[in-house]
Amino acid sequence: MAAFKAGNVLITGANRGLGFEMVKQLLEVPCPKWQIFAGCRDPDGPKSEALRELVKKHPSVITIIDVADPCSIKESAKKVGSLLGKNSLNMLVNNAAVLASGSMMTIPAEDMQNTFNTNVMGPLLVIREYLPYLQTAAKARGTSGMSCDKAAVINISSTGGSITSMPSMYTQFPVLPYSVSKAGLNMLTALIAVELKPDEILCMALHPGWVRTDMGGEEVSVGSITTKLMFLKAPLEARESVEGMLRVISSLTENEHGGFMDYTGQTLPW
Amino acid sequence: MAAFKAGNVLITGANRGLGFEMVKQLLEVPCPKWQIFAGCRDPDGPKSEALRELVKKHPSVITIIDVADPCSIKESAKKVGSLLGKNSLNMLVNNAAVLASGSMMTIPAEDMQNTFNTNVMGPLLVIREYLPYLQTAAKARGTSGMSCDKAAVINISSTGGSITSMPSMYTQFPVLPYSVSKAGLNMLTALIAVELKPDEILCMALHPGWVRTDMGGEEVSVGSITTKLMFLKAPLEARESVEGMLRVISSLTENEHGGFMDYTGQTLPW
Repeated sequence: MAAFKAGNVLITGANRGLGFEMVKQLLEVPCPKWQIFAGCRDPDGPKSEALRELVKKHPSVITIIDVADPCSIKESAKKVGSLLGKNSLNMLVNNAAVLASGSMMTIPAEDMQNTFNTNVMGPLLVIREYLPYLQTAAKARGTSGMSCDKAAVINISSTGGSITSMPSMYTQFPVLPYSVSKAGLNMLTALIAVELKPDEILCMALHPGWVRTDMGGEEVSVGSITTKLMFLKAPLEARESVEGMLRVISSLTENEHGGFMDYTGQTLPW
Repeated sequence: MAAFKAGNVLITGANRGLGFEMVKQLLEVPCPKWQIFAGCRDPDGPKSEALRELVKKHPSVITIIDVADPCSIKESAKKVGSLLGKNSLNMLVNNAAVLASGSMMTIPAEDMQNTFNTNVMGPLLVIREYLPYLQTAAKARGTSGMSCDKAAVINISSTGGSITSMPSMYTQFPVLPYSVSKAGLNMLTALIAVELKPDEILCMALHPGWVRTDMGGEEVSVGSITTKLMFLKAPLEARESVEGMLRVISSLTENEHGGFMDYTGQTLPW
C-alpha cells in the first residue's frame, strides 16, 4: 500500500468485502498511534468472524463498533469519542452498502426503501454523529487546505449511481434500487461537501470498480442471475480495488472536494 | 396553450400548484373524447376543494382519483382502467412531490424517508400500476417513434435534483431531502426509460422552473426561512411554467427519451 500517511480511521461495513480488505491494508501502514474503528452491523455474528480474528492479532489498533441502526450509530460515536480521548478522527469511510437488484416491474417496494436506508440514510447518520471528531481533527492540523490524513469523509459510491453512465449498463445489470440509492448518495456527498467546506473537511464519492465480493450478503441473491454474471465477469480483485482507492485517497486535495472518482483516480460523470 | 394534441392524461398532485394549473390548461385543448385523471392524496379534504369545483364544471372530462399510498394507487388504476374501457392512457405526469428543507445537521431522518417515499417511490408505484394502459396506448398508435400524445411518462423533477447544479445553489436553498430524492427520481427516470424503450413509451424528467406555489403544504414550512425567500425570489408564475412545460411536452420525440429538460426546452445536466 502506497502513500496513505496515517491518522485515525473509521470504516463501515468493515467485516467483509472491500471494508475488510481496507482494514487489512491499513494495518500495513506503519504508525504507532494508529486507531482503526471497524464498523459493522452484527459484531458478534458469524459474518464478522474474520474481523474478530483480525482484532485478536491487532487488539491495540482495531476496535469493532456496531453501526447497525440510528441508536447503535449514536452509541458507537460515544464509545469512539471516549477511546479517542484527546485525539480525533481523521477519516470516515462510508463503505457499508447493500446491493438489491431488480427492475421497475420486479422489485418489492421494501427493497427500494431498505436500500435507501442502508446506502443513503446510513452514511448521513454516521457523518452526523462523527462530525465533531472530524472537526477536531481538521482544527488540530492548524494548516489550511484539505487532505485525507487531515480530515475527510469518503463515501463509497458506484458508477452504478452515475445517471450518465448507468442506462447503458442497465440491461446487463438491472439493479434499480441500488442505482437510485447511489445517485442519492452522490447528491448527499455533493451537498455535504458544501456544508463541510468551512471546516476544511474533504468529502467525495469514490467508485471502487466492479469487484468480486459477496456484497450485501442475502441481498445479492435477490432475483437476478444477471447480477451474478456481472460479478463473475468483474475483472477486479478486492485487493487491487482497495490498493487503488487508498492510492487515490492519499492523493486527494481540496481540488477533488465534492467530486466523484474511481479507484484509478479518474473523474466520473454524475 | 400551444400544440399539445390530446389524449387521455393522468396527473398526480393535481389538486394544487403546478398539477392543478396543468389540469386547467389541458381543459383548454379541444378534444371531445379527452379524459383527465386528476390524482391527489385527499380527494375529499379541504386542499382538494378547488379541484372538486373544477370537476363540477367539467364532470365528463375530469375524474379525481386517490393516489395517496400503494393500496389507493392500485385501486385507482382499476378504476381508471374501467373508465378507460377500450381506450388507453397516453400520458402520465408524475407531478406530486413534497419539499422538505433542511441541511445535514438539521433534518429529521423521517423527513428524508418521507420525501423519498413521496418523490421516488410514489412515481415508481404509479408507473408500475398504470403501465398496462400506457402500453395499450403505444400499441394502438400503430406507428413507430415516440411522442406524448402516443404514450409517455413525464416525471416532474427539478434542477434541485441536478448533482451538477445544486451544490452552487445549496447555501441559498438548503433542501437536502428534496435534492437527494430528486437525484433518485432522475436515476429512476433514466433507468425506466431503458425499460420502456421496447414499448416505445417516452420517458423523461422535466424541471418546471422555480415557481411560486405552496408545494408540499406543511412540508414547505419545515425549518427554513431561506426556502421561503427563494420562493419569493422565484420569478415564475405557475401559469407560465405550465405553458412552457406543455410546449416542451408537445415537442418531445424519441430524441429526448431518457433525458432531463427544463420548461423552456433546455437540456439540464444530471
